Amino acid sequence: MTRGDVPTGPVESELITPEELRLAARNHAMPLEALRYPITPVGLHYLLVHYDIPWIDPAAWRLEVDGRVRRPLSLTLPALRERPGRTIVSTMECAGNGRAELSPRPLSQPWLLEAVGTAEWEGVPLGAVLDEAEPLPDATEVLFTGADRGIEGGIDQHYQRSLPLDEARRDEVVLAHGLNGAPLPPQHGFPLRLLVPGWYGMTNVKWLTRITVLDEPFTGPQQARSYRIRQREEAEGDPVTRMEPRSLMIPPGIPDFLTRRRTVPMGAGLIQGRAWSGWAPVALVEVSTDGGGSWAAAELGGDAASPWAWQSWSYRWEPPAPGEYELCSRATDHAGHVQPTEVVWNLGGYANNAVQRLAVTVVSC
Amino acid sequence: MTRGDVPTGPVESELITPEELRLAARNHAMPLEALRYPITPVGLHYLLVHYDIPWIDPAAWRLEVDGRVRRPLSLTLPALRERPGRTIVSTMECAGNGRAELSPRPLSQPWLLEAVGTAEWEGVPLGAVLDEAEPLPDATEVLFTGADRGIEGGIDQHYQRSLPLDEARRDEVVLAHGLNGAPLPPQHGFPLRLLVPGWYGMTNVKWLTRITVLDEPFTGPQQARSYRIRQREEAEGDPVTRMEPRSLMIPPGIPDFLTRRRTVPMGAGLIQGRAWSGWAPVALVEVSTDGGGSWAAAELGGDAASPWAWQSWSYRWEPPAPGEYELCSRATDHAGHVQPTEVVWNLGGYANNAVQRLAVTVVSC
Repeated sequence: MTRGDVPTGPVESELITPEELRLAARNHAMPLEALRYPITPVGLHYLLVHYDIPWIDPAAWRLEVDGRVRRPLSLTLPALRERPGRTIVSTMECAGNGRAELSPRPLSQPWLLEAVGTAEWEGVPLGAVLDEAEPLPDATEVLFTGADRGIEGGIDQHYQRSLPLDEARRDEVVLAHGLNGAPLPPQHGFPLRLLVPGWYGMTNVKWLTRITVLDEPFTGPQQARSYRIRQREEAEGDPVTRMEPRSLMIPPGIPDFLTRRRTVPMGAGLIQGRAWSGWAPVALVEVSTDGGGSWAAAELGGDAASPWAWQSWSYRWEPPAPGEYELCSRATDHAGHVQPTEVVWNLGGYANNAVQRLAVTVVSC
Repeated sequence: MTRGDVPTGPVESELITPEELRLAARNHAMPLEALRYPITPVGLHYLLVHYDIPWIDPAAWRLEVDGRVRRPLSLTLPALRERPGRTIVSTMECAGNGRAELSPRPLSQPWLLEAVGTAEWEGVPLGAVLDEAEPLPDATEVLFTGADRGIEGGIDQHYQRSLPLDEARRDEVVLAHGLNGAPLPPQHGFPLRLLVPGWYGMTNVKWLTRITVLDEPFTGPQQARSYRIRQREEAEGDPVTRMEPRSLMIPPGIPDFLTRRRTVPMGAGLIQGRAWSGWAPVALVEVSTDGGGSWAAAELGGDAASPWAWQSWSYRWEPPAPGEYELCSRATDHAGHVQPTEVVWNLGGYANNAVQRLAVTVVSC
């Protein structure tokens, strides 16, 4: 590859292109030591912005609700904030988390494993807003449009995603105007974003300006082309929806600055982490200290703040001797989904929930 | 380069190594559209964490002040917060900002141009704390130790940097416990960090645990080895201190998702940005719309919130015709420092304040 070439297909090399670096610099991962916090502090929650963070004047902003409804609405921000609200702690993960671990590597935001976070979202139930607009009998889907605009796959677009009407009416789906007790920060969708607990991040449209009730499937680029599991461009593929189970470890010991390689002192200690799934609460977390050769159950914290939030786990480990170890953990949820050793590769690099592998060097103190 | 090799020297290729990607995923840049905000919202300010964000129990935490002083101090967080405080708006930039634009590219955090942010810091004057400890007559330097620990250049260390005593006693140097009206978030140094307005980011030691007054120069690795401008390993080099002048543009138009390439509509518009220098306030910002062939003065906002904060500028531009343009801006400060077209390469990739170049495609509407 020479300067000026912009590849568009998957890359065989483990070296990262300048385009991927530009995306990685903008889109923030959650450093894994932040797994310590049950609620991710603002600024550590992962962040993916497809285009630019838009500049929105909250006084001029309106949420329009239109399409196949009897009563179109135009709501101001104060009017939304005055409605009966709901606070939900919810874990959110990017559908592309784990993409950079795939080989060949699909060209997009090169997430390693840290595109996750858990926040306390405050908002108004979407179902109540829809009820007020009175969807017509032929309504089947709800389309969400953000103020963010850019070019993707050659198409000039505002970011748009739809949900089936039944999914949009779930009790816990909210239009969020607050995060961790404060107004939404600009980068998380100020003044209003969608929050669909359990679903991958792309669902939760930020900087909402319009909700349109449809009587047919939405076929925009983020729905029909992106966020589908497929192996070939010409395949229709299966839509990405709920988060697959995943467990992540707080990296033990101390890091090397450049390589991030971990050094752990001899002696008894705890391996700790958090696990989640969008399908059902986590039922089991297992840990391996020999690279997946053998597994043992971790102790679950039972401390998930909601059915849609991660829970903590811990595992007591006393390394038998100094040397090199590969630590792994894997989650199983109550719906029976188990985190795999390896996923089936897909073109967009979505939903790669393969087990985390963490190399550590154990040293005498 | 094959899997498993970890290069340590500068890299000729523009392709990024897996080690650099791991650093880029952890260390957050400020997306350039956030130049719109005079005070950078929490979570958009740049962030460099050498090792891990440490876990600190604020009740057990103490700031120790010791070394060449008559009265060593041990201060609790409430005791520090009760002291007479000061609020300072200050722009902070990483000394490595621009590193990834150098060729060959020094191997470290691969910053493009976005390692900057401006915050409202609240804290207590360091001078008053030092006065209370009563430095002995032979005191010459002040050493700051953070709680963050890791291995760097083969050395197991807590992050440590020193300042000359006179510099530490400057009026505007504070021990900061607040950011943008709230307690410091964990990633910005909770519960206490140093803030030295005008100096590059490495000076502002986070997660402070100890301040040690010295009677000789500190020669720890972050002082004597890192953060020095030198062309060869064996050279002593010159220390990196204050921020060189820099102007950055808010990227106009809309981006392409993958390449971040900008598309701008025909018609009159404003090119806007912010500029700063650690040596003196900004005196002049110039803009070029032909890749540096010709320059014209931008209008300065005169709105810097303090002598250590960036100020806004704007420049009216009406592209003569659709096509490709390269936009540039450059700052000159009141001390006479001018932002260069190209800097002299150095081993650590520090202080690269070469002019930003931004390619845009102008299209008919």
